[in-house]
Amino acid sequence: MDKYRFGIDLGGTTVKLGLFDDEGTLLEKWEIPTRPANGGAAILPDIADSVAAALARHGLTREQVRGAGLGVPGAVTEGRHVAPCVNLDGWGGDVGTALSALCGFPVRVVNDANAASLGELWRGGGAGCRSMVFLTLGTGVGGGVVVDGKLLTGAHGCGGELGHIKVNVGEDELCGCGKRGCLEQYASATGVVRAAKRLLAGTDTPSALRDGEVSARAVFDCAKAGDALALEAVALFADTLGQALAAISCVCDPEKFVIGGGVSAAGPFLLDKLIPAFRRYAFPPAEGTAFALASLGNEAGIYGCAYLVGMAE
Amino acid sequence: MDKYRFGIDLGGTTVKLGLFDDEGTLLEKWEIPTRPANGGAAILPDIADSVAAALARHGLTREQVRGAGLGVPGAVTEGRHVAPCVNLDGWGGDVGTALSALCGFPVRVVNDANAASLGELWRGGGAGCRSMVFLTLGTGVGGGVVVDGKLLTGAHGCGGELGHIKVNVGEDELCGCGKRGCLEQYASATGVVRAAKRLLAGTDTPSALRDGEVSARAVFDCAKAGDALALEAVALFADTLGQALAAISCVCDPEKFVIGGGVSAAGPFLLDKLIPAFRRYAFPPAEGTAFALASLGNEAGIYGCAYLVGMAE
Repeated sequence: MDKYRFGIDLGGTTVKLGLFDDEGTLLEKWEIPTRPANGGAAILPDIADSVAAALARHGLTREQVRGAGLGVPGAVTEGRHVAPCVNLDGWGGDVGTALSALCGFPVRVVNDANAASLGELWRGGGAGCRSMVFLTLGTGVGGGVVVDGKLLTGAHGCGGELGHIKVNVGEDELCGCGKRGCLEQYASATGVVRAAKRLLAGTDTPSALRDGEVSARAVFDCAKAGDALALEAVALFADTLGQALAAISCVCDPEKFVIGGGVSAAGPFLLDKLIPAFRRYAFPPAEGTAFALASLGNEAGIYGCAYLVGMAE
Repeated sequence: MDKYRFGIDLGGTTVKLGLFDDEGTLLEKWEIPTRPANGGAAILPDIADSVAAALARHGLTREQVRGAGLGVPGAVTEGRHVAPCVNLDGWGGDVGTALSALCGFPVRVVNDANAASLGELWRGGGAGCRSMVFLTLGTGVGGGVVVDGKLLTGAHGCGGELGHIKVNVGEDELCGCGKRGCLEQYASATGVVRAAKRLLAGTDTPSALRDGEVSARAVFDCAKAGDALALEAVALFADTLGQALAAISCVCDPEKFVIGGGVSAAGPFLLDKLIPAFRRYAFPPAEGTAFALASLGNEAGIYGCAYLVGMAE
């Protein structure tokens, strides 16, 4: 009998769901709204109803489902306990047991950023790797460290908190974590915009960026077009990120770095700047570490949740 | 029938050997000279003879030996192949199989720095931990990263090469690895001496260090006695090391940092300086990470080799 899995990625506004076969082929994906009111009381029943409807659409029984993975926007301890989620009205607890009771098959729970890392490992930019470091460069910098096919979450849940590696202890501005000089102050969308704005304010260099809104996309687009100031902002970004990736490599030495998040929309141009910066700072035997762009976009979470179904506890 | 293990730590001048019971109690330790001439042809026969003599001394048979771990001063790939060792006249190859044939019981091979990490995990400063980061602060800075009771060696053998994390990309002097600004240029015995000498040359601050040889031990002893210049050198050392440990924590988030090597002879005074520096830079949930001094000294290697005997491949 063929077996199937659900990958369920719970966000603050929508729940993304995917039905997969056991080899990791996505058969259908869809979304439902998240209803966080009243401590999120409707969240799990809504998911269970949507799962039941999907089983009916595909003519499947509950017995044919190996299980589901549920990605949540909060800390998960001991593989099941979800700390109260700020943007879900404090929803949390042993939600895996509760969803399993509603659905009639096993449910594994995982932090959403970790789920995305596992998705990229299984069917994305890290496919085929046993060890991988995933970075999402968005508003902030998130990450996931995979060793021997498993996520390294750490003793205090801080494994893979790569955005908070200190790269400039002389930084004046505070990071969201309350300290200064974190990687995400430099290597995020916010960081590259800040670097460009400082260059615009501090120099007279002509730049197309002087004419419109300075977004991360605009900085990368201008850099691709040869704009000197934008190229300088991108060089600062890549140098700082390369330095942090070299430090990460001295700790866990992954086969591959996989780069995702909004900034990775800059594509191969981003890797062309980043790889030489990494090599400048890497311990020599690790200079050849592979790089790839993430390939699953915002489907990475449902893939990672489905992957988790097949893994040992 | 009681079982026993050998831990064998091969160095450039001596081989340290230990006979352990299966619970990790060291029953006897001894040393023999290393004879590296002729590509190290005598190394394994010498070890096998010494092991046979120990069995006779203790009235044990080969059948009572679960196995031996052999620590080697070089890179080990796939758990058995030793790259030619520079300070052993190019000795290397599949030495585990060769020693096993001579001894009549299984032999596991491991890099010596990694062996020391496993020793501290098993019976030293990291005892009771599932995850630990070990740093040896000596002439250089070595390390070992343990996750779920296993060494993280990495895709290119660079896992735990913590001495080559870049902490100052503006550094002028070259590190032994050919790059600049590595942790071991600052957080080693050599590094603290260099910092003190720079302060002595660049200031008029009175200091007891102006009167004798500036060794790492002298710097720490003067700092303990309240010497302002020595305290400044130690503060620089601790700040740089704390910054690197905070970065390591953002990657693998260990339960504990265990500090060994010659510099760790400075004892609790070292940790009193290091822990606040770490907390200054750590991601907040990891600020409470435990610290301990290594406790096995130069026996860590034989303990780690014996530990390896009981582990899955």
